[in-house]
Amino acid sequence: MALLHELETQSSGTGTPLVEVLDVLPYNEQGLIAAIAQDATSREVLMLAWMNREALEATITQGVVTYFSRSRQALWRKGETSGHTQTLKAMHIDCDGDAILLTVQQSGPACHTNRPTCFYLCVEGEQVVIASEPVN
Amino acid sequence: MALLHELETQSSGTGTPLVEVLDVLPYNEQGLIAAIAQDATSREVLMLAWMNREALEATITQGVVTYFSRSRQALWRKGETSGHTQTLKAMHIDCDGDAILLTVQQSGPACHTNRPTCFYLCVEGEQVVIASEPVN
Repeated sequence: MALLHELETQSSGTGTPLVEVLDVLPYNEQGLIAAIAQDATSREVLMLAWMNREALEATITQGVVTYFSRSRQALWRKGETSGHTQTLKAMHIDCDGDAILLTVQQSGPACHTNRPTCFYLCVEGEQVVIASEPVN
Repeated sequence: MALLHELETQSSGTGTPLVEVLDVLPYNEQGLIAAIAQDATSREVLMLAWMNREALEATITQGVVTYFSRSRQALWRKGETSGHTQTLKAMHIDCDGDAILLTVQQSGPACHTNRPTCFYLCVEGEQVVIASEPVN
């Protein structure tokens, strides 16, 4: 965290070796960091999932998003069964290092319900309204 | 979770009482759910923070975003000291109920470093590069 704190005051354009940052990220007690996927074109927020260091490194190396499945306790290459992969266009880390923003090119729907985004439950007044239909 | 599972197959426009959904959200062992703030105008993802049920209800009721500060273990009305408040424009819950998407009108910079977004650490090849300057 000392490194991340130092980076707070550095100027735009300053570079730090990636491995040094990956070394100091505050992975939670399960070794995970929250990762948000945003569509590069529509700018829609598609989903939130989790990454461990291995998933982060696989995503950076391969250019295709791999998460860590908490239910299966294993690396989960998004789309490995559905074909709905996420090609990585950009990756940003937040100020305190406990969240990752993935800018992606999404193939097909992001959600396992076949909706374009996982955030389809819209709070409207005293109701929660389904905001989209599954894509065929 | 049974309710959220039922909602997966409901048609667009179907409504469910908000309180029933808030009752069944899978709050984590600290009673929290991840909340993503996205700027309503620029569509930029601003930050990720956490909400407990009380923060969720305060945000919905007041129309101004309140998180739960894990470091202070208390409700944290964003901007209460900085003035950099977030006015709620829309709220969406994801398919499995463990993430919230807040569409907000952000006053001033979202980040405590005075940068517009917390996601200013850009992964570029083997480097992490500072992507923006604090706003004066």
